Amino acid sequence: MDGFRWGVIGLGLIGGSIARRLAQQGMPVLGADVDPEPCRQAAGSGIFEAVLDPVALAQAADGVILAAPVGAIEGLLEALPWRPGQVILDTGSTKRRIVAAMGRLPAGVGAVGGHPMAGKEVSGFAAADPGLFLGRPFILVPTARTTPEAARRAEELVRALGARPMWMEAESHDRRVAWISHLPYVTALALMAVGEAARDPVLWEMAASGFRDATRVAASDLRMMGEAVRSNADEVVAALDGLIATLERWRAHLRANPPLLPPEWEALSARRRSLRF
Amino acid sequence: MDGFRWGVIGLGLIGGSIARRLAQQGMPVLGADVDPEPCRQAAGSGIFEAVLDPVALAQAADGVILAAPVGAIEGLLEALPWRPGQVILDTGSTKRRIVAAMGRLPAGVGAVGGHPMAGKEVSGFAAADPGLFLGRPFILVPTARTTPEAARRAEELVRALGARPMWMEAESHDRRVAWISHLPYVTALALMAVGEAARDPVLWEMAASGFRDATRVAASDLRMMGEAVRSNADEVVAALDGLIATLERWRAHLRANPPLLPPEWEALSARRRSLRF
Repeated sequence: MDGFRWGVIGLGLIGGSIARRLAQQGMPVLGADVDPEPCRQAAGSGIFEAVLDPVALAQAADGVILAAPVGAIEGLLEALPWRPGQVILDTGSTKRRIVAAMGRLPAGVGAVGGHPMAGKEVSGFAAADPGLFLGRPFILVPTARTTPEAARRAEELVRALGARPMWMEAESHDRRVAWISHLPYVTALALMAVGEAARDPVLWEMAASGFRDATRVAASDLRMMGEAVRSNADEVVAALDGLIATLERWRAHLRANPPLLPPEWEALSARRRSLRF
Repeated sequence: MDGFRWGVIGLGLIGGSIARRLAQQGMPVLGADVDPEPCRQAAGSGIFEAVLDPVALAQAADGVILAAPVGAIEGLLEALPWRPGQVILDTGSTKRRIVAAMGRLPAGVGAVGGHPMAGKEVSGFAAADPGLFLGRPFILVPTARTTPEAARRAEELVRALGARPMWMEAESHDRRVAWISHLPYVTALALMAVGEAARDPVLWEMAASGFRDATRVAASDLRMMGEAVRSNADEVVAALDGLIATLERWRAHLRANPPLLPPEWEALSARRRSLRF
Protein backbone atom coordinates (compact mmCIF):
# COMPACT_ATOMS: atom_id res chain seq x y z
CA MET A 1 0.00 0.00 0.00
CA ASP A 2 1.00 3.64 0.27
CA GLY A 3 2.24 4.41 3.76
CA PHE A 4 -1.29 4.15 5.15
CA ARG A 5 -0.88 2.76 8.64
CA TRP A 6 -3.43 0.46 10.28
CA GLY A 7 -3.69 -0.02 14.00
CA VAL A 8 -5.54 -2.86 15.71
CA ILE A 9 -7.26 -2.36 19.07
CA GLY A 10 -8.07 -5.69 20.69
CA LEU A 11 -5.35 -8.34 20.33
CA GLY A 12 -7.33 -11.55 20.74
CA LEU A 13 -7.82 -14.24 18.11
CA ILE A 14 -9.34 -11.94 15.46
CA GLY A 15 -7.28 -8.79 16.06
CA GLY A 16 -4.10 -10.83 16.48
CA SER A 17 -4.76 -12.75 13.26
CA ILE A 18 -5.33 -9.51 11.33
CA ALA A 19 -2.12 -8.03 12.70
CA ARG A 20 -0.11 -11.15 11.91
CA ARG A 21 -1.39 -11.20 8.34
CA LEU A 22 -0.66 -7.50 7.75
CA ALA A 23 2.86 -7.91 9.15
CA GLN A 24 3.35 -10.96 6.92
CA GLN A 25 2.37 -8.76 3.95
CA GLY A 26 5.03 -6.24 4.98
CA MET A 27 2.50 -3.62 6.08
CA PRO A 28 3.24 -1.50 9.18
CA VAL A 29 0.81 -2.21 12.01
CA LEU A 30 0.21 -0.77 15.48
CA GLY A 31 -1.38 -2.71 18.30
CA ALA A 32 -3.30 -1.92 21.48
CA ASP A 33 -5.35 -3.73 24.08
CA VAL A 34 -6.91 -2.69 27.38
CA ASP A 35 -5.43 -5.78 29.11
CA PRO A 36 -1.69 -5.87 29.86
CA GLU A 37 -1.27 -9.61 29.08
CA PRO A 38 -2.05 -9.52 25.32
CA CYS A 39 0.00 -6.30 25.10
CA ARG A 40 2.96 -8.15 26.59
CA GLN A 41 2.52 -11.06 24.16
CA ALA A 42 2.09 -8.66 21.23
CA ALA A 43 5.20 -6.67 22.16
CA GLY A 44 7.17 -9.94 22.34
CA SER A 45 5.90 -11.15 18.96
CA GLY A 46 7.98 -8.65 17.00
CA ILE A 47 5.23 -8.05 14.45
CA PHE A 48 4.11 -4.60 15.66
CA GLU A 49 5.70 -1.29 14.85
CA ALA A 50 4.58 -0.30 18.36
CA VAL A 51 2.19 -1.51 21.06
CA LEU A 52 0.39 1.50 22.54
CA ASP A 53 -2.63 2.27 24.65
CA PRO A 54 -5.89 2.67 22.68
CA VAL A 55 -5.88 6.50 22.84
CA ALA A 56 -2.30 6.77 21.58
CA LEU A 57 -3.06 4.24 18.85
CA ALA A 58 -6.12 6.18 17.70
CA GLN A 59 -3.95 9.30 17.51
CA ALA A 60 -1.15 7.58 15.57
CA ALA A 61 -2.96 5.33 13.07
CA ASP A 62 -4.50 6.32 9.73
CA GLY A 63 -6.95 3.45 9.98
CA VAL A 64 -8.14 1.79 13.18
CA ILE A 65 -9.53 -1.75 13.40
CA LEU A 66 -11.67 -2.35 16.48
CA ALA A 67 -11.43 -6.09 17.23
CA ALA A 68 -13.29 -6.52 20.51
CA PRO A 69 -16.64 -7.81 21.78
CA VAL A 70 -19.60 -5.74 20.56
CA GLY A 71 -20.13 -3.80 23.80
CA ALA A 72 -16.44 -2.88 24.04
CA ILE A 73 -16.46 -1.64 20.44
CA GLU A 74 -19.39 0.67 21.24
CA GLY A 75 -17.42 2.01 24.19
CA LEU A 76 -14.28 2.60 22.12
CA LEU A 77 -16.26 4.37 19.36
CA GLU A 78 -17.57 6.77 21.97
CA ALA A 79 -14.38 7.26 23.95
CA LEU A 80 -11.51 7.59 21.49
CA PRO A 81 -10.25 10.89 19.98
CA TRP A 82 -11.27 10.39 16.32
CA ARG A 83 -10.33 12.98 13.70
CA PRO A 84 -11.69 13.81 10.24
CA GLY A 85 -10.15 11.74 7.46
CA GLN A 86 -9.47 8.82 9.76
CA VAL A 87 -10.77 5.38 8.75
CA ILE A 88 -12.45 3.04 11.27
CA LEU A 89 -13.41 -0.58 10.71
CA ASP A 90 -14.63 -3.02 13.33
CA THR A 91 -14.91 -6.82 13.46
CA GLY A 92 -17.85 -7.18 15.88
CA SER A 93 -20.08 -10.17 15.30
CA THR A 94 -23.34 -8.19 15.21
CA LYS A 95 -23.75 -4.97 13.32
CA ARG A 96 -26.91 -2.97 14.09
CA ARG A 97 -25.73 -1.41 17.36
CA ILE A 98 -22.21 -0.73 16.09
CA VAL A 99 -23.42 0.80 12.84
CA ALA A 100 -25.72 3.08 14.84
CA ALA A 101 -22.80 4.09 17.08
CA MET A 102 -20.64 4.75 14.01
CA GLY A 103 -23.37 7.03 12.66
CA ARG A 104 -22.91 9.21 15.74
CA LEU A 105 -19.17 9.79 15.06
CA PRO A 106 -17.98 13.31 14.13
CA ALA A 107 -18.55 14.26 10.48
CA GLY A 108 -15.50 13.60 8.30
CA VAL A 109 -14.56 10.35 10.06
CA GLY A 110 -14.86 7.41 7.65
CA ALA A 111 -16.39 4.39 9.37
CA VAL A 112 -17.36 0.95 8.01
CA GLY A 113 -18.87 -1.96 9.91
CA GLY A 114 -17.12 -5.28 9.41
CA HIS A 115 -17.40 -8.97 10.32
CA PRO A 116 -14.96 -11.62 9.14
CA MET A 117 -16.81 -14.94 8.74
CA ALA A 118 -14.03 -16.98 10.25
CA GLY A 119 -13.22 -18.18 13.71
CA LYS A 120 -12.02 -20.95 15.91
CA GLU A 121 -13.16 -22.33 19.24
CA VAL A 122 -9.84 -21.17 20.72
CA SER A 123 -9.16 -17.56 21.67
CA GLY A 124 -6.40 -15.14 22.54
CA PHE A 125 -3.36 -13.66 20.83
CA ALA A 126 -1.48 -16.95 21.20
CA ALA A 127 -4.03 -18.61 18.86
CA ALA A 128 -3.77 -15.87 16.20
CA ASP A 129 -3.29 -17.23 12.70
CA PRO A 130 -2.43 -15.07 9.67
CA GLY A 131 -4.24 -17.55 7.40
CA LEU A 132 -7.52 -17.40 9.37
CA PHE A 133 -9.36 -15.30 6.76
CA LEU A 134 -8.08 -16.87 3.54
CA GLY A 135 -10.90 -17.32 1.04
CA ARG A 136 -13.54 -16.45 3.66
CA PRO A 137 -16.24 -13.78 3.24
CA PHE A 138 -15.56 -10.58 5.19
CA ILE A 139 -18.86 -8.72 5.59
CA LEU A 140 -18.71 -4.93 5.13
CA VAL A 141 -21.63 -2.81 6.28
CA PRO A 142 -22.26 0.80 5.20
CA THR A 143 -22.90 3.41 7.91
CA ALA A 144 -23.93 7.06 7.90
CA ARG A 145 -20.17 7.80 8.12
CA THR A 146 -18.99 5.58 5.27
CA THR A 147 -16.96 7.85 2.97
CA PRO A 148 -15.78 6.57 -0.45
CA GLU A 149 -12.23 6.62 0.96
CA ALA A 150 -13.26 4.51 3.97
CA ALA A 151 -15.06 2.00 1.73
CA ARG A 152 -11.99 1.72 -0.51
CA ARG A 153 -9.59 1.30 2.43
CA ALA A 154 -11.85 -1.32 4.04
CA GLU A 155 -12.00 -3.37 0.82
CA GLU A 156 -8.25 -3.03 0.41
CA LEU A 157 -7.73 -4.34 3.94
CA VAL A 158 -10.07 -7.28 3.40
CA ARG A 159 -8.15 -8.25 0.24
CA ALA A 160 -4.84 -7.91 2.11
CA LEU A 161 -6.21 -10.49 4.58
CA GLY A 162 -6.88 -12.87 1.69
CA ALA A 163 -10.64 -12.59 2.33
CA ARG A 164 -13.57 -11.64 0.05
CA PRO A 165 -15.37 -8.33 0.70
CA MET A 166 -19.16 -8.82 0.81
CA TRP A 167 -21.31 -5.73 1.37
CA MET A 168 -24.70 -5.93 3.07
CA GLU A 169 -26.94 -3.87 5.35
CA ALA A 170 -26.66 -4.27 9.13
CA GLU A 171 -30.21 -5.68 9.42
CA SER A 172 -29.57 -8.44 6.82
CA HIS A 173 -26.27 -9.26 8.46
CA ASP A 174 -27.74 -9.64 11.92
CA ARG A 175 -30.60 -11.83 10.71
CA ARG A 176 -28.20 -14.06 8.80
CA VAL A 177 -25.70 -14.51 11.64
CA ALA A 178 -28.58 -15.38 13.97
CA TRP A 179 -29.24 -18.38 11.71
CA ILE A 180 -25.76 -19.52 10.79
CA SER A 181 -23.77 -18.59 13.88
CA HIS A 182 -25.81 -17.78 16.99
CA LEU A 183 -28.45 -20.49 16.60
CA PRO A 184 -25.82 -23.26 16.14
CA TYR A 185 -24.01 -21.87 19.20
CA VAL A 186 -27.13 -21.89 21.40
CA THR A 187 -28.02 -25.36 20.11
CA ALA A 188 -24.57 -26.74 20.89
CA LEU A 189 -24.87 -25.44 24.45
CA ALA A 190 -28.35 -26.99 24.69
CA LEU A 191 -27.01 -30.40 23.57
CA MET A 192 -24.39 -30.09 26.32
CA ALA A 193 -27.11 -29.12 28.83
CA VAL A 194 -29.28 -32.14 27.99
CA GLY A 195 -26.25 -34.42 28.32
CA GLU A 196 -25.19 -32.86 31.63
CA ALA A 197 -28.72 -33.21 33.00
CA ALA A 198 -28.38 -36.99 32.61
CA ARG A 199 -25.58 -37.02 35.24
CA ASP A 200 -24.09 -40.07 33.52
CA PRO A 201 -20.30 -39.93 32.98
CA VAL A 202 -20.52 -42.92 30.60
CA LEU A 203 -22.23 -40.57 28.11
CA TRP A 204 -19.07 -38.57 27.56
CA GLU A 205 -17.02 -41.74 27.27
CA MET A 206 -19.35 -43.01 24.53
CA ALA A 207 -19.65 -39.74 22.63
CA ALA A 208 -18.10 -40.01 19.19
CA SER A 209 -17.15 -37.64 16.38
CA GLY A 210 -20.79 -36.77 15.65
CA PHE A 211 -21.34 -35.34 19.13
CA ARG A 212 -17.89 -33.75 19.17
CA ASP A 213 -18.54 -31.82 15.95
CA ALA A 214 -22.15 -30.94 16.79
CA THR A 215 -21.06 -29.32 20.06
CA ARG A 216 -17.67 -27.89 19.08
CA VAL A 217 -18.85 -24.25 18.95
CA ALA A 218 -20.04 -24.55 22.57
CA ALA A 219 -16.33 -24.33 23.48
CA SER A 220 -16.06 -20.84 21.93
CA ASP A 221 -15.10 -17.84 24.05
CA LEU A 222 -18.29 -17.03 25.98
CA ARG A 223 -17.20 -13.41 26.48
CA MET A 224 -17.28 -12.98 22.70
CA MET A 225 -20.18 -15.27 21.73
CA GLY A 226 -22.41 -14.49 24.71
CA GLU A 227 -22.10 -10.80 24.00
CA ALA A 228 -22.85 -11.44 20.30
CA VAL A 229 -26.00 -13.38 21.16
CA ARG A 230 -27.16 -10.78 23.66
CA SER A 231 -26.62 -7.91 21.22
CA ASN A 232 -28.68 -9.83 18.62
CA ALA A 233 -31.27 -11.22 21.01
CA ASP A 234 -34.37 -10.31 18.94
CA GLU A 235 -33.07 -12.14 15.86
CA VAL A 236 -31.82 -15.09 17.93
CA VAL A 237 -35.28 -15.38 19.52
CA ALA A 238 -36.86 -15.39 16.03
CA ALA A 239 -34.42 -18.10 14.90
CA LEU A 240 -35.19 -20.09 18.08
CA ASP A 241 -38.91 -19.80 17.31
CA GLY A 242 -38.25 -21.46 13.95
CA LEU A 243 -36.01 -24.15 15.43
CA ILE A 244 -38.38 -25.03 18.28
CA ALA A 245 -41.36 -25.20 15.89
CA THR A 246 -39.39 -27.53 13.61
CA LEU A 247 -38.33 -29.80 16.49
CA GLU A 248 -41.91 -29.93 17.80
CA ARG A 249 -43.25 -30.89 14.37
CA TRP A 250 -40.66 -33.64 14.03
CA ARG A 251 -41.31 -34.89 17.57
CA ALA A 252 -44.95 -35.41 16.58
CA HIS A 253 -43.81 -37.60 13.66
CA LEU A 254 -41.60 -39.68 15.95
CA ARG A 255 -44.44 -40.04 18.47
CA ALA A 256 -46.71 -41.64 15.86
CA ASN A 257 -47.29 -45.38 16.08
CA PRO A 258 -45.37 -46.72 14.23
CA PRO A 259 -42.91 -43.79 14.39
CA LEU A 260 -42.53 -41.82 11.15
CA LEU A 261 -39.51 -39.98 9.80
CA PRO A 262 -40.23 -36.39 8.74
CA PRO A 263 -40.45 -36.50 4.93
CA GLU A 264 -38.15 -33.46 4.52
CA TRP A 265 -35.15 -35.27 6.04
CA GLU A 266 -34.23 -36.76 2.66
CA ALA A 267 -33.91 -33.33 1.00
CA LEU A 268 -32.19 -31.70 4.01
CA SER A 269 -29.66 -34.51 4.20
CA ALA A 270 -28.93 -34.22 0.47
CA ARG A 271 -28.68 -30.44 0.79
CA ARG A 272 -26.10 -30.74 3.55
CA ARG A 273 -24.06 -33.15 1.48
CA SER A 274 -24.12 -30.63 -1.39
CA LEU A 275 -22.74 -27.76 0.72
CA ARG A 276 -19.03 -27.12 0.26
CA PHE A 277 -17.27 -25.08 2.95
CA MET B 1 -6.36 -66.24 16.60
CA ASP B 2 -7.05 -69.96 16.28
CA GLY B 3 -8.60 -70.65 12.88
CA PHE B 4 -11.89 -69.11 13.99
CA ARG B 5 -13.32 -67.51 10.86
CA TRP B 6 -15.40 -64.34 10.94
CA GLY B 7 -17.76 -63.34 8.15
CA VAL B 8 -19.22 -59.88 7.67
CA ILE B 9 -22.70 -59.40 6.21
CA GLY B 10 -23.19 -55.81 5.05
CA LEU B 11 -20.16 -54.26 3.35
CA GLY B 12 -20.80 -50.56 3.89
CA LEU B 13 -18.64 -48.18 5.93
CA ILE B 14 -18.83 -50.17 9.17
CA GLY B 15 -18.75 -53.73 7.79
CA GLY B 16 -16.08 -52.79 5.25
CA SER B 17 -13.93 -51.15 7.93
CA ILE B 18 -14.20 -54.25 10.16
CA ALA B 19 -13.23 -56.51 7.27
CA ARG B 20 -10.29 -54.32 6.26
CA ARG B 21 -8.98 -54.28 9.82
CA LEU B 22 -9.30 -58.07 10.25
CA ALA B 23 -7.52 -58.64 6.93
CA GLN B 24 -4.80 -56.21 7.99
CA GLN B 25 -4.36 -58.32 11.16
CA GLY B 26 -3.91 -61.41 8.99
CA MET B 27 -7.26 -62.93 10.02
CA PRO B 28 -9.34 -64.77 7.40
CA VAL B 29 -12.61 -62.99 6.64
CA LEU B 30 -15.65 -63.76 4.50
CA GLY B 31 -17.92 -61.07 3.08
CA ALA B 32 -21.52 -60.81 1.90
CA ASP B 33 -24.00 -58.13 0.96
CA VAL B 34 -27.49 -58.20 -0.50
CA ASP B 35 -26.51 -55.58 -3.12
CA PRO B 36 -24.28 -56.60 -6.05
CA GLU B 37 -22.28 -53.33 -6.12
CA PRO B 38 -20.53 -53.60 -2.72
CA CYS B 39 -19.97 -57.33 -3.45
CA ARG B 40 -18.20 -56.38 -6.67
CA GLN B 41 -16.05 -53.80 -4.85
CA ALA B 42 -15.34 -56.25 -2.03
CA ALA B 43 -14.33 -59.01 -4.48
CA GLY B 44 -11.98 -56.56 -6.22
CA SER B 45 -10.39 -55.42 -2.94
CA GLY B 46 -8.50 -58.66 -2.44
CA ILE B 47 -9.08 -58.65 1.32
CA PHE B 48 -11.76 -61.38 1.50
CA GLU B 49 -11.19 -65.10 1.48
CA ALA B 50 -14.49 -65.24 -0.40
CA VAL B 51 -17.48 -63.02 -1.14
CA LEU B 52 -20.65 -65.08 -0.82
CA ASP B 53 -24.37 -64.58 -0.49
CA PRO B 54 -25.60 -64.14 3.12
CA VAL B 55 -26.93 -67.72 3.42
CA ALA B 56 -23.68 -69.26 2.19
CA LEU B 57 -21.70 -66.97 4.50
CA ALA B 58 -23.80 -67.95 7.52
CA GLN B 59 -23.14 -71.61 6.66
CA ALA B 60 -19.37 -71.13 6.22
CA ALA B 61 -18.39 -68.72 9.03
CA ASP B 62 -17.72 -69.57 12.69
CA GLY B 63 -18.71 -66.04 13.70
CA VAL B 64 -21.00 -63.72 11.78
CA ILE B 65 -20.99 -59.92 12.08
CA LEU B 66 -24.22 -58.32 10.94
CA ALA B 67 -23.33 -54.78 9.79
CA ALA B 68 -26.54 -53.40 8.36
CA PRO B 69 -29.30 -50.95 9.31
CA VAL B 70 -31.32 -52.09 12.33
CA GLY B 71 -34.34 -53.35 10.36
CA ALA B 72 -32.16 -55.37 8.00
CA ILE B 73 -30.33 -56.96 10.95
CA GLU B 74 -33.67 -58.09 12.42
CA GLY B 75 -34.55 -59.62 9.05
CA LEU B 76 -31.21 -61.44 8.79
CA LEU B 77 -31.47 -62.79 12.35
CA GLU B 78 -34.81 -64.31 11.43
CA ALA B 79 -33.93 -65.56 7.94
CA LEU B 80 -30.45 -67.08 8.11
CA PRO B 81 -29.69 -70.76 8.87
CA TRP B 82 -27.97 -70.40 12.26
CA ARG B 83 -26.51 -73.44 13.99
CA PRO B 84 -25.60 -74.22 17.63
CA GLY B 85 -22.11 -73.08 18.58
CA GLN B 86 -22.10 -70.29 16.05
CA VAL B 87 -21.29 -66.78 17.25
CA ILE B 88 -23.29 -63.74 16.10
CA LEU B 89 -22.46 -60.09 16.70
CA ASP B 90 -24.18 -57.10 15.15
CA THR B 91 -23.22 -53.43 14.78
CA GLY B 92 -26.69 -51.87 14.70
CA SER B 93 -26.96 -48.40 16.19
CA THR B 94 -29.88 -49.22 18.52
CA LYS B 95 -30.02 -52.36 20.61
CA ARG B 96 -33.40 -53.11 22.21
CA ARG B 97 -35.09 -54.53 19.12
CA ILE B 98 -32.02 -56.47 17.99
CA VAL B 99 -31.35 -57.92 21.45
CA ALA B 100 -35.00 -59.08 21.58
CA ALA B 101 -34.63 -60.69 18.15
CA MET B 102 -31.38 -62.38 19.25
CA GLY B 103 -33.25 -63.79 22.25
CA ARG B 104 -35.53 -65.63 19.84
CA LEU B 105 -32.63 -67.45 18.10
CA PRO B 106 -32.35 -71.24 18.48
CA ALA B 107 -30.78 -72.37 21.76
CA GLY B 108 -27.05 -73.01 21.46
CA VAL B 109 -26.42 -70.08 19.15
CA GLY B 110 -24.18 -67.50 20.87
CA ALA B 111 -25.37 -63.97 20.16
CA VAL B 112 -24.09 -60.59 21.42
CA GLY B 113 -25.40 -57.13 20.55
CA GLY B 114 -22.76 -54.63 19.45
CA HIS B 115 -22.34 -51.00 18.53
CA PRO B 116 -19.00 -49.43 17.62
CA MET B 117 -19.02 -45.76 18.69
CA ALA B 118 -17.31 -44.56 15.55
CA GLY B 119 -18.51 -43.29 12.24
CA LYS B 120 -18.11 -40.81 9.45
CA GLU B 121 -20.53 -38.76 7.44
CA VAL B 122 -19.47 -40.72 4.35
CA SER B 123 -20.75 -44.19 3.58
CA GLY B 124 -20.10 -47.27 1.50
CA PHE B 125 -17.33 -49.84 1.11
CA ALA B 126 -15.15 -47.30 -0.74
CA ALA B 127 -14.99 -45.20 2.46
CA ALA B 128 -14.05 -48.19 4.67
CA ASP B 129 -11.09 -47.49 6.94
CA PRO B 130 -9.28 -50.15 8.99
CA GLY B 131 -8.37 -47.50 11.59
CA LEU B 132 -11.97 -46.38 12.13
CA PHE B 133 -12.34 -48.06 15.54
CA LEU B 134 -8.92 -47.38 17.05
CA GLY B 135 -9.22 -46.34 20.68
CA ARG B 136 -13.02 -46.00 20.42
CA PRO B 137 -15.54 -47.68 22.72
CA PHE B 138 -17.32 -50.68 21.16
CA ILE B 139 -20.51 -51.31 23.12
CA LEU B 140 -21.34 -54.97 23.83
CA VAL B 141 -24.83 -55.90 24.99
CA PRO B 142 -25.79 -59.19 26.64
CA THR B 143 -28.76 -61.13 25.22
CA ALA B 144 -30.69 -64.22 26.30
CA ARG B 145 -28.38 -66.10 23.88
CA THR B 146 -25.04 -64.74 25.11
CA THR B 147 -22.90 -67.80 25.87
CA PRO B 148 -19.51 -67.37 27.63
CA GLU B 149 -17.88 -68.39 24.33
CA ALA B 150 -19.80 -65.71 22.39
CA ALA B 151 -18.89 -63.05 24.97
CA ARG B 152 -15.22 -64.03 24.76
CA ARG B 153 -15.21 -64.06 20.94
CA ALA B 154 -16.96 -60.70 20.79
CA GLU B 155 -14.41 -59.11 23.14
CA GLU B 156 -11.59 -60.70 21.16
CA LEU B 157 -12.98 -59.20 17.96
CA VAL B 158 -13.36 -55.76 19.51
CA ARG B 159 -9.73 -55.84 20.63
CA ALA B 160 -8.63 -57.00 17.17
CA LEU B 161 -10.30 -53.86 15.81
CA GLY B 162 -8.20 -51.75 18.19
CA ALA B 163 -11.38 -50.73 20.07
CA ARG B 164 -12.35 -50.94 23.77
CA PRO B 165 -15.12 -53.38 24.79
CA MET B 166 -17.72 -51.69 27.00
CA TRP B 167 -20.62 -53.84 28.26
CA MET B 168 -24.02 -52.35 29.04
CA GLU B 169 -27.71 -53.30 28.90
CA ALA B 170 -29.71 -52.56 25.75
CA GLU B 171 -31.96 -50.06 27.57
CA SER B 172 -29.02 -47.99 28.87
CA HIS B 173 -27.40 -48.09 25.46
CA ASP B 174 -30.48 -46.84 23.64
CA ARG B 175 -31.06 -44.02 26.11
CA ARG B 176 -27.44 -42.93 25.83
CA VAL B 177 -27.28 -42.96 22.03
CA ALA B 178 -30.51 -40.95 21.92
CA TRP B 179 -28.61 -38.19 23.74
CA ILE B 180 -25.18 -38.34 22.15
CA SER B 181 -25.98 -39.49 18.63
CA HIS B 182 -29.63 -39.23 17.59
CA LEU B 183 -30.40 -35.88 19.21
CA PRO B 184 -27.35 -34.19 17.62
CA TYR B 185 -28.41 -35.71 14.29
CA VAL B 186 -31.99 -34.44 14.52
CA THR B 187 -30.71 -31.04 15.68
CA ALA B 188 -28.28 -30.77 12.76
CA LEU B 189 -31.14 -31.48 10.34
CA ALA B 190 -33.27 -28.87 12.13
CA LEU B 191 -30.52 -26.24 11.78
CA MET B 192 -30.46 -27.04 8.05
CA ALA B 193 -34.27 -26.79 7.91
CA VAL B 194 -34.33 -23.35 9.57
CA GLY B 195 -31.64 -22.15 7.16
CA GLU B 196 -33.45 -23.56 4.12
CA ALA B 197 -36.71 -21.94 5.21
CA ALA B 198 -35.01 -18.53 4.87
CA ARG B 199 -34.64 -19.10 1.09
CA ASP B 200 -31.53 -16.93 1.12
CA PRO B 201 -28.54 -18.33 -0.82
CA VAL B 202 -26.24 -15.74 0.80
CA LEU B 203 -26.66 -17.68 4.07
CA TRP B 204 -24.71 -20.64 2.76
CA GLU B 205 -22.04 -18.36 1.34
CA MET B 206 -21.59 -16.74 4.76
CA ALA B 207 -21.69 -19.93 6.80
CA ALA B 208 -18.34 -20.58 8.49
CA SER B 209 -16.69 -23.44 10.33
CA GLY B 210 -19.11 -23.18 13.26
CA PHE B 211 -22.14 -23.93 11.09
CA ARG B 212 -20.21 -26.53 9.10
CA ASP B 213 -19.28 -28.52 12.22
CA ALA B 214 -22.66 -28.08 13.92
CA THR B 215 -24.45 -29.58 10.90
CA ARG B 216 -21.88 -32.14 9.72
CA VAL B 217 -23.80 -35.18 10.97
CA ALA B 218 -26.81 -34.09 8.89
CA ALA B 219 -24.81 -35.38 5.91
CA SER B 220 -24.77 -38.93 7.34
CA ASP B 221 -26.37 -41.79 5.44
CA LEU B 222 -30.11 -41.30 6.04
CA ARG B 223 -30.81 -44.98 5.38
CA MET B 224 -28.67 -45.80 8.40
CA MET B 225 -29.38 -42.84 10.70
CA GLY B 226 -33.08 -42.48 9.86
CA GLU B 227 -33.60 -46.14 10.66
CA ALA B 228 -31.63 -45.74 13.91
CA VAL B 229 -33.78 -42.80 15.00
CA ARG B 230 -37.01 -44.59 14.08
CA SER B 231 -36.02 -47.74 15.96
CA ASN B 232 -35.25 -45.59 19.04
CA ALA B 233 -38.16 -43.17 18.63
CA ASP B 234 -39.36 -43.26 22.27
CA GLU B 235 -35.92 -42.35 23.63
CA VAL B 236 -35.37 -39.73 20.93
CA VAL B 237 -38.73 -38.16 21.81
CA ALA B 238 -37.68 -38.05 25.49
CA ALA B 239 -34.37 -36.42 24.53
CA LEU B 240 -36.25 -33.93 22.32
CA ASP B 241 -38.52 -33.09 25.26
CA GLY B 242 -35.42 -32.14 27.26
CA LEU B 243 -33.88 -30.18 24.41
CA ILE B 244 -37.05 -28.23 23.59
CA ALA B 245 -37.64 -27.39 27.25
CA THR B 246 -34.06 -26.11 27.52
CA LEU B 247 -34.36 -23.98 24.38
CA GLU B 248 -37.69 -22.55 25.57
CA ARG B 249 -36.21 -21.62 28.95
CA TRP B 250 -33.25 -19.92 27.28
CA ARG B 251 -35.51 -18.12 24.80
CA ALA B 252 -37.33 -16.56 27.76
CA HIS B 253 -33.99 -15.21 29.05
CA LEU B 254 -33.17 -13.71 25.66
CA ARG B 255 -36.66 -12.17 25.42
CA ALA B 256 -36.15 -10.22 28.66
CA ASN B 257 -35.50 -6.49 28.44
CA PRO B 258 -32.56 -6.08 28.51
CA PRO B 259 -31.84 -9.60 27.20
CA LEU B 260 -30.16 -11.96 29.69
CA LEU B 261 -27.78 -14.81 29.08
CA PRO B 262 -28.78 -18.09 30.77
CA PRO B 263 -26.51 -18.37 33.85
CA GLU B 264 -25.61 -22.00 33.08
CA TRP B 265 -23.83 -21.09 29.82
CA GLU B 266 -20.58 -20.38 31.69
CA ALA B 267 -20.41 -23.91 33.17
CA LEU B 268 -21.60 -25.63 29.97
CA SER B 269 -19.02 -23.79 27.91
CA ALA B 270 -16.25 -24.73 30.38
CA ARG B 271 -17.49 -28.33 30.43
CA ARG B 272 -17.29 -28.56 26.64
CA ARG B 273 -13.75 -27.18 26.69
CA SER B 274 -12.82 -29.86 29.24
CA LEU B 275 -14.06 -32.76 27.06
CA ARG B 276 -11.33 -34.62 25.18
CA PHE B 277 -12.42 -36.78 22.26
